Amino acid sequence: MKAVVYQGPFSVSVEEVPDPELKHPNDVIVKITSSCICGSDLHMYEGRTAAEPGIIFGHENMGVVAEVGSAVKSLSVGDRVVMPFNVGCGFCKNCQRGYTGFCVTVNPGFAGGAYGYVAMGPWRGGQAEYLQVPHADFNCLPLPAGDEFESDFALLADIFPTGYHGTELADVSPGESVAVWGAGPVGLMATYSCIIRGAAEVYSIDHVQERLDKASEIGATPINFDDGDPVQQIRDMRGGDGVDKTVDAVGYQAAAQGSSAAGGEQDEIPNVVLNEMIDLINPTGIMGIPGLYVPSDPGGVDEGAKRGALSINFGKLFEKGLKLGTGQCNVKQYNAYLRDLIISGKATPSFVVSHEVPLDDAVDAYDKFDKRIDGYTKVILNP
Amino acid sequence: MKAVVYQGPFSVSVEEVPDPELKHPNDVIVKITSSCICGSDLHMYEGRTAAEPGIIFGHENMGVVAEVGSAVKSLSVGDRVVMPFNVGCGFCKNCQRGYTGFCVTVNPGFAGGAYGYVAMGPWRGGQAEYLQVPHADFNCLPLPAGDEFESDFALLADIFPTGYHGTELADVSPGESVAVWGAGPVGLMATYSCIIRGAAEVYSIDHVQERLDKASEIGATPINFDDGDPVQQIRDMRGGDGVDKTVDAVGYQAAAQGSSAAGGEQDEIPNVVLNEMIDLINPTGIMGIPGLYVPSDPGGVDEGAKRGALSINFGKLFEKGLKLGTGQCNVKQYNAYLRDLIISGKATPSFVVSHEVPLDDAVDAYDKFDKRIDGYTKVILNP
Amino acid sequence: MKAVVYQGPFSVSVEEVPDPELKHPNDVIVKITSSCICGSDLHMYEGRTAAEPGIIFGHENMGVVAEVGSAVKSLSVGDRVVMPFNVGCGFCKNCQRGYTGFCVTVNPGFAGGAYGYVAMGPWRGGQAEYLQVPHADFNCLPLPAGDEFESDFALLADIFPTGYHGTELADVSPGESVAVWGAGPVGLMATYSCIIRGAAEVYSIDHVQERLDKASEIGATPINFDDGDPVQQIRDMRGGDGVDKTVDAVGYQAAAQGSSAAGGEQDEIPNVVLNEMIDLINPTGIMGIPGLYVPSDPGGVDEGAKRGALSINFGKLFEKGLKLGTGQCNVKQYNAYLRDLIISGKATPSFVVSHEVPLDDAVDAYDKFDKRIDGYTKVILNP
Amino acid sequence: MKAVVYQGPFSVSVEEVPDPELKHPNDVIVKITSSCICGSDLHMYEGRTAAEPGIIFGHENMGVVAEVGSAVKSLSVGDRVVMPFNVGCGFCKNCQRGYTGFCVTVNPGFAGGAYGYVAMGPWRGGQAEYLQVPHADFNCLPLPAGDEFESDFALLADIFPTGYHGTELADVSPGESVAVWGAGPVGLMATYSCIIRGAAEVYSIDHVQERLDKASEIGATPINFDDGDPVQQIRDMRGGDGVDKTVDAVGYQAAAQGSSAAGGEQDEIPNVVLNEMIDLINPTGIMGIPGLYVPSDPGGVDEGAKRGALSINFGKLFEKGLKLGTGQCNVKQYNAYLRDLIISGKATPSFVVSHEVPLDDAVDAYDKFDKRIDGYTKVILNP
Repeated sequence: MKAVVYQGPFSVSVEEVPDPELKHPNDVIVKITSSCICGSDLHMYEGRTAAEPGIIFGHENMGVVAEVGSAVKSLSVGDRVVMPFNVGCGFCKNCQRGYTGFCVTVNPGFAGGAYGYVAMGPWRGGQAEYLQVPHADFNCLPLPAGDEFESDFALLADIFPTGYHGTELADVSPGESVAVWGAGPVGLMATYSCIIRGAAEVYSIDHVQERLDKASEIGATPINFDDGDPVQQIRDMRGGDGVDKTVDAVGYQAAAQGSSAAGGEQDEIPNVVLNEMIDLINPTGIMGIPGLYVPSDPGGVDEGAKRGALSINFGKLFEKGLKLGTGQCNVKQYNAYLRDLIISGKATPSFVVSHEVPLDDAVDAYDKFDKRIDGYTKVILNP
Repeated sequence: MKAVVYQGPFSVSVEEVPDPELKHPNDVIVKITSSCICGSDLHMYEGRTAAEPGIIFGHENMGVVAEVGSAVKSLSVGDRVVMPFNVGCGFCKNCQRGYTGFCVTVNPGFAGGAYGYVAMGPWRGGQAEYLQVPHADFNCLPLPAGDEFESDFALLADIFPTGYHGTELADVSPGESVAVWGAGPVGLMATYSCIIRGAAEVYSIDHVQERLDKASEIGATPINFDDGDPVQQIRDMRGGDGVDKTVDAVGYQAAAQGSSAAGGEQDEIPNVVLNEMIDLINPTGIMGIPGLYVPSDPGGVDEGAKRGALSINFGKLFEKGLKLGTGQCNVKQYNAYLRDLIISGKATPSFVVSHEVPLDDAVDAYDKFDKRIDGYTKVILNP
Repeated sequence: MKAVVYQGPFSVSVEEVPDPELKHPNDVIVKITSSCICGSDLHMYEGRTAAEPGIIFGHENMGVVAEVGSAVKSLSVGDRVVMPFNVGCGFCKNCQRGYTGFCVTVNPGFAGGAYGYVAMGPWRGGQAEYLQVPHADFNCLPLPAGDEFESDFALLADIFPTGYHGTELADVSPGESVAVWGAGPVGLMATYSCIIRGAAEVYSIDHVQERLDKASEIGATPINFDDGDPVQQIRDMRGGDGVDKTVDAVGYQAAAQGSSAAGGEQDEIPNVVLNEMIDLINPTGIMGIPGLYVPSDPGGVDEGAKRGALSINFGKLFEKGLKLGTGQCNVKQYNAYLRDLIISGKATPSFVVSHEVPLDDAVDAYDKFDKRIDGYTKVILNP
Repeated sequence: MKAVVYQGPFSVSVEEVPDPELKHPNDVIVKITSSCICGSDLHMYEGRTAAEPGIIFGHENMGVVAEVGSAVKSLSVGDRVVMPFNVGCGFCKNCQRGYTGFCVTVNPGFAGGAYGYVAMGPWRGGQAEYLQVPHADFNCLPLPAGDEFESDFALLADIFPTGYHGTELADVSPGESVAVWGAGPVGLMATYSCIIRGAAEVYSIDHVQERLDKASEIGATPINFDDGDPVQQIRDMRGGDGVDKTVDAVGYQAAAQGSSAAGGEQDEIPNVVLNEMIDLINPTGIMGIPGLYVPSDPGGVDEGAKRGALSINFGKLFEKGLKLGTGQCNVKQYNAYLRDLIISGKATPSFVVSHEVPLDDAVDAYDKFDKRIDGYTKVILNP
């Protein structure tokens, strides 16, 4: 079959690889119909991880069941399914409590596994024609037959639940005010989730106008940090008040006005979002942090950042009595509910998708998405 | 009346001051029977705060109602009561949601007020014969008449709820394993609260043997960090496993093996407990942090510490998907329940009290408590 | 001043009564701008309660502060405010935990008080020019000055929070399916709250077409029980499946197909909604019950109903592992958040208001509302 | 192998039956070391169910893994394990949310399956030498090797978690007052769980002195309903006050003073516990109901009871704003935590075990347990 294979920094190829096989009675093989490219794929693509050439990329996968292992109970050939990016076993101490992003079975020695990702276990990615899915009864979310909502459902593998996870970590509730840092795909999904959950005011902070426009279209107030300190901008709009809740959909590669990540001269500022959140949020608030922070970043801006140690305004955080929650999304906690919102027409997350291209165009898509040119913001590959 | 008055670093006096008066229809005047000296009083005593001479100390107060304001509904002269250290109004946006430690009424411009404490509002302390209590219907917890459980009830003003708050922030639940940093009065109360809440294993980390002995007596496993890395000691006891939850009852003036705070040559290490907790706790865990961190500490060990910025292993915290909660205890959320545990004989927190002395002996008591000599660990003044 | 005074069954008058006065330092006097007639006012109006002539009606009140008691801290003359229908003290064991609908201070011997309602304490109603508001700091919700959103804000006194309470009791969460019994004012507010909270599918059950049309307009699926068993109708729409959650916004005066309450020959069927909910809901579901059930109903259809004893299919309820929550709304838990939704334009509950009339027209309004003629479904009196 | 086989009302035999076999790759075969007789086994034994002769009884099973299916990942021959009485798949919509007592996979057409029980699926019971365990990775709880705590661990299959479930449904929290109806094995476990969770006062209601003595030994206040109305007895002890929470560990075969179930002349009173709970509990309380109620009881005392319809004082329940939760215990939510309490020495539930006998003595044990003679209250069979 064809698959997207990592060749080294800034290089992928679409090439023939062996078809996946049923290796375990609980496996299924899924014929992929949609597999998205994720911003975190670019971490590998850019050579900022320990990924070795040969990895098949793709952790945002959906398709149709093509083969069924002998122990599988709930699935049949032809079933349309979408898989969480995290691989879970369903029975370990973490999976059984719903923490499927921290499965201790599928990636021995670590809590958490995923498809097609360095250090996340032996699972091949789904930017390919077929995918082996382990613990299939647990990992496949059934979808209505047909091809309706294809690009909405594809987002159930990762970014819609991940954005939603940020609002769950922050316990965003009806009538609250929320500020969301980042209006990339995950940030927009977090903003969208705030709206779905009934927030009264949602502020979306970024500096890319197209992203802010999308945030505005779904009902948020756009805040462009190139126009000045976002904390002050929001306080000014609120008569000096802060917000009830915050969501960090940016993570450690944070840009701020004038930083290199924002196209300026300074380095990335990995703690800028965390400290801005502490500054803006009201006492007793909760901060949801789905944005990625890593314990080891060889490209970090200083010695601390290289080992994931950041300078946090902890005294202020304590004085305000804040709470925070972090970590990979446990996709399976949310995906059935979000699927039902899509089916009922109450959510249409595909507004973030900029391109849908054949698998054969993956090389070009990676290149353009990495450079953020030609409007590439969220790409779905259709094998 | 007599009161304990701050004179300057390492100096208090017991002197005559004007009696407090009913200043507002919702006030009562309480004749103090017990008022504890708190470790946080020592922050002022040692000159590490902006406290000016003349402050009357004392935020852990109980006694008998002596005068009742005209608007008070639920209290009568003669009622025995204990007051949360935090002063709340009962109706602001934070008090009404239970966040009485973050009242925005009683200390204008700040979220949170207390008796007898620098920057916590205009409220005189209760290390005195009488105390003005505002919003008395809200701030007085009724107690059974008489003098039974006097020293247990006195701890309802602060340290028993504060220790308990740590376990609430960490959501300590039956059957869990918990590590509590610090076995001072608050740390012991946190450890005791873990036992009350049904934890299966509780580790108490300190390096003062008398404290560790008390932790052991109430059912915890003592860990002396002078014997080596406490994280490794606990992992060794657990076959390599970490713990479900952690509580930081130490805060920013943290000692570690070899630090000055621990009697060694190094400086205090303000982030040591936070990073040890991140290291020990299992993925998906929750960290409760009642230990004090401050946004401004002129005596901080470095530039960051002086403004409350600490280097936190945030990459590891995120990778493990941790949550944390911080802040002053909202005493009123817990004090009625903890009172009932005392009355029913199911809790006897007074085991931490080392000395009960007359108000006139306050000068000596401050001196010895500050030096931790003659076994002074928790002192109650009896005016 | 003028006020609406109960004269006896099916009779009210608008007459001069003494102006209310500040009776306690924590009181304010509010000049009423809007006071709604509630369906529960009709219980008294129809003579189905122990209400004696002379009661001033009106528990859904908003207006402008006209006089301020000496102990009040947060309010000034001229402030625009809306008051929860339930009167709370703010400091009793129930109020302090948020259960302001069960205050044990304001109506001695009972848990819960209200304005202008039989057996709910000594508080006069607000269908009048002025209203005495006790514990004013606690009971007044500040509103933006002016007259914007007047009819939306007026609904914050009762029906918007009460409908929302039903969804809170049922823990309605994003992506869930919910069935709401009743599309009267409270039922529509419950349905609207389901939508606000992100439910995927909401079924609104009634048999009055105008009500069902409004439910449909806000995004719910209307179910007319005159067309057949509503449980079966919903299952048929869902391929046999039930729903995740249910809300009972009807209560004990329940109509069902063919019942007198529905215009038929049978008696009211006080348990019909409860048992239909048990029948429709999926195992592990939660039922929110804001609809009124009473422990004493002299007009009850049988001996059990007269003392509030209903035949419930408890075996089925247990087999399904259901949970349920009941009771008067604790308005103060929700009203600030719902106010902010109105201000931000994300909620416009006034779509349920059918008439706004001067106080002088109250006699006519009661008559027509009781008879449900001329489209009277929700009336606001503007003194 | 030998097994306990149902022969008809009041008759079981111990006889040779075919050994169980691995029927599915996810199965294991467990060699049983302990299997308890449960009160609910007596429902079948007494002929009050639709059970047909030939059923192998036993749903409270522990032992050692003897054979392992080809798809099983976490278990090896020789592992010591205990199994929840409810069989779950681990991946259905209910299991994945923790509602393992309502699995929709293992007992098609119904939500919930169990071993050796009529209408609970095709699973043979474990009062036998061997047991087939499906979905073994999910259904087996690992235990420390050896034979320590054998009778404590055996109770993890059902009654310890089931009693604990009652306290979870009622959200029993530190410092609260709780009344538990029933001091049989499950009632004692509920009472014990209240103590473990830090309740301040626990009232245990029964009329069998030995049971009440055991309740007293673990720290509860015994209430003998033969001495008068238990509600009044408790109110008298509490100065008229009710309790915060209640647990019903009795269910539909409820006895009350003078009833046949209590040895008197009256019939069983299936709603007596529910209505006493509504009477005693304070407004805003929560009632946990693990005691069994059934939708069909041919032996019911009246027409309603035969179909599980009970007369509930719903008006009073609503007036008090009560909540309640019901249903079979989801054992897997609690068993690992309760196991750890046993291992740490903080819980010793085996105090309820009256007899441990060889499998061959099962006929005698059933007879005596059913008659409650010779002190038979909780029996463990050791094959």
